[in-house]
Amino acid sequence: MKISKLTDSISLQRSVEQANVDHLTTVRQVIEDVQKNGDKALFAYTEKWDGAKLTSLKVTQNEIDEAFESFDGQLIQDLEEAATNIRAFHSKQSRQNIDFPLAKNSYIKYQITALDSVGLYVPGGTAAYPSSVLMNAIPALVAGVERVVIVSPPSKEGKLPASVLVAAKIAGVTEIYKVGGAQAIAALAYGTDSIPAVDKITGPGNSYVALAKREVFGKVAIDMIAGPSEIAVIADETAYADEVASDLLAQAEHDRFACSILITTSESLAEQVALEVEKQLKQLPREEIARASIENFGHIYVAESLEQAIDAVNELAPEHLEIITKNAEAVAEQVKHAGAIFIGRFSSEAVGDYFAGTNHVLPTNSTAKFSSGLCVDDFLKKTSVVYYSEEMWKEQYPKIARLARMEQLEGHARSVESRSWNKGDLN
Amino acid sequence: MKISKLTDSISLQRSVEQANVDHLTTVRQVIEDVQKNGDKALFAYTEKWDGAKLTSLKVTQNEIDEAFESFDGQLIQDLEEAATNIRAFHSKQSRQNIDFPLAKNSYIKYQITALDSVGLYVPGGTAAYPSSVLMNAIPALVAGVERVVIVSPPSKEGKLPASVLVAAKIAGVTEIYKVGGAQAIAALAYGTDSIPAVDKITGPGNSYVALAKREVFGKVAIDMIAGPSEIAVIADETAYADEVASDLLAQAEHDRFACSILITTSESLAEQVALEVEKQLKQLPREEIARASIENFGHIYVAESLEQAIDAVNELAPEHLEIITKNAEAVAEQVKHAGAIFIGRFSSEAVGDYFAGTNHVLPTNSTAKFSSGLCVDDFLKKTSVVYYSEEMWKEQYPKIARLARMEQLEGHARSVESRSWNKGDLN
Repeated sequence: MKISKLTDSISLQRSVEQANVDHLTTVRQVIEDVQKNGDKALFAYTEKWDGAKLTSLKVTQNEIDEAFESFDGQLIQDLEEAATNIRAFHSKQSRQNIDFPLAKNSYIKYQITALDSVGLYVPGGTAAYPSSVLMNAIPALVAGVERVVIVSPPSKEGKLPASVLVAAKIAGVTEIYKVGGAQAIAALAYGTDSIPAVDKITGPGNSYVALAKREVFGKVAIDMIAGPSEIAVIADETAYADEVASDLLAQAEHDRFACSILITTSESLAEQVALEVEKQLKQLPREEIARASIENFGHIYVAESLEQAIDAVNELAPEHLEIITKNAEAVAEQVKHAGAIFIGRFSSEAVGDYFAGTNHVLPTNSTAKFSSGLCVDDFLKKTSVVYYSEEMWKEQYPKIARLARMEQLEGHARSVESRSWNKGDLN
Repeated sequence: MKISKLTDSISLQRSVEQANVDHLTTVRQVIEDVQKNGDKALFAYTEKWDGAKLTSLKVTQNEIDEAFESFDGQLIQDLEEAATNIRAFHSKQSRQNIDFPLAKNSYIKYQITALDSVGLYVPGGTAAYPSSVLMNAIPALVAGVERVVIVSPPSKEGKLPASVLVAAKIAGVTEIYKVGGAQAIAALAYGTDSIPAVDKITGPGNSYVALAKREVFGKVAIDMIAGPSEIAVIADETAYADEVASDLLAQAEHDRFACSILITTSESLAEQVALEVEKQLKQLPREEIARASIENFGHIYVAESLEQAIDAVNELAPEHLEIITKNAEAVAEQVKHAGAIFIGRFSSEAVGDYFAGTNHVLPTNSTAKFSSGLCVDDFLKKTSVVYYSEEMWKEQYPKIARLARMEQLEGHARSVESRSWNKGDLN
């Protein structure tokens, strides 16, 4: 792993491939086809791309129950405990309406309501992470979304992974469809006979899925389109090199474009971590992926001071930040920008990825400067309500009319004045 | 104005022009030029497109003070009162950190912090609305954004409208630059010597500005790209036709693509409103614009019942909704989707456009189903924080490791287990 002195210019930018133009053409055709031909198009694409010849898209209650009964009991218990933790923390994020009384029996209000329906995309194969099912579905359900739907591509045998069905059941989702790719996104956005449309689509997916989400954005809402994952670790001489190395590698094993950065005030830790990374890499099942990530995007920086390290992290605004130093909590308080912060050596990122209760869908690529991880807010919307009584109107309308005329919007001025036209002695 | 019976299929969709490809090419060139040549490019474009030969972009305190002193005293007072109302209501939207204690001295937290910096685009000429300056700047300042910047294209004489400078001063913004168009957006996103970059850009603009915002999205955050404005009015036989007509026209005078819809249970009101619209149109300074809007997109629907009217509105999810009926508050409670609701005949939309305290930047084109008007939340971000004590880790890590292995992420499992490697009797 590369080691260098920390200078001013460090970055998370990775040269990720540009969107493939051929992919975009395909995606647009698929969306048009699903809009025109509905379920027929869904069955055809599922046969063509997933090799599954289906007669019905919806997963039956029977299939869900079977998956649950055949699944490892210990893992079910672990998933249930994780779900309980996630539900508990996200429930704290619920919002209250705001009532704001004005003079003369008037008021304004802020009405906070849940979206009606949300679709969650779950990738197929080895990327079907049950933890992501929990992290996406639970905030929507806590927000009060009445209809939460999962779509996921089936295997050749026409089945979804048991782990996905189990996680869905634990989260509380029972409307699940065997359809993936751009065709699933099109179905969620425009609706078919089998799959009524939803108002928002969340969840990760391959480049076809990401492109399709961009295409339907505006017709429905979408979550962020996340870039590859990343971690920054701030550590001083009190950190154990093997632990820091294992955390850097946990990030690197995600994919080749993942980015793991260590910023340390200890030159000796820097050297030991580099050795440990190499040692642990050789024993990692996903060595090839992790090695590519570490070689291309991994970096150890030696900082002159903790302050310099913190400044650099605030510039980076990393998705994940671990702080393994003396007085780690005090250091955390100086961090302004990060998706999630993990304090001390016993809070490795995996604690939050799976279990603590915080969300693992987080802003990547320095966007933590201005955006946040997935949360209950993402499934709520706010409507403002205005009520002016006659007395209030009488007092205020001349001001409103003057402001409208200042902007040369005479029609606006007349609309507030119209309440007195020919209606007796109102003004 | 067209009158028809309310059927199931009513819509706000307007065939708005597709993004102009030539415009996009220009916008991309401008952004590249500003990234490369900084202020030099800004001066050149400002001379080319605004006809102003500037030597400095920043508005001086002197210019702000002069604008203020020369401005109508009554209007200053009206703007100040509007700002006070907007500030009061938006202050109620402030958020608290969430502290969530766990067992064994552990905790998770949700840290809510303001963005560092925000840029507000203010269009030039007659579209320079001081009310929009208040509506965009105040929520950011209430959120706690330390640096709020305004950019706006200068006149040929190198000046900004006095009303914009006055509204900025009242809102509390003093960093103002004389630059508009795509070049202003590029400067805000990438920074120049005169204009340090910001983290988020909000505010309306012409098609060049909208395209530039889309292009820099990801480097910085942007607000929604709003479509043309719209209003739906639900009214029964208790409504006055002249008042309803004036409210429909206030919307229509905005632009040719604005959309005004009345849904009424009274056939006689429908007919009277149609006559009133024609009568009032002839006396409106912006008659030409309002007439085009009414003829192309205006519509009066006669509903069989109030329930049918409410269902239709929930399908429409209009930007603005006025309810002028008996028991208007009870009707409002049945509305699920709208940007803003105005209750009763004394709460015309202009009350909220200018004065009541709610925001006038609202979701258009049925997106109120899943999105909200501009608010304090738009200038806040949330960071989750996880702290596990040694005891907590010892109890929980086997579960976390099992969940990671279930997802075949061995590196994740090892990272939580590493805390016990060779370190004595921890597990």
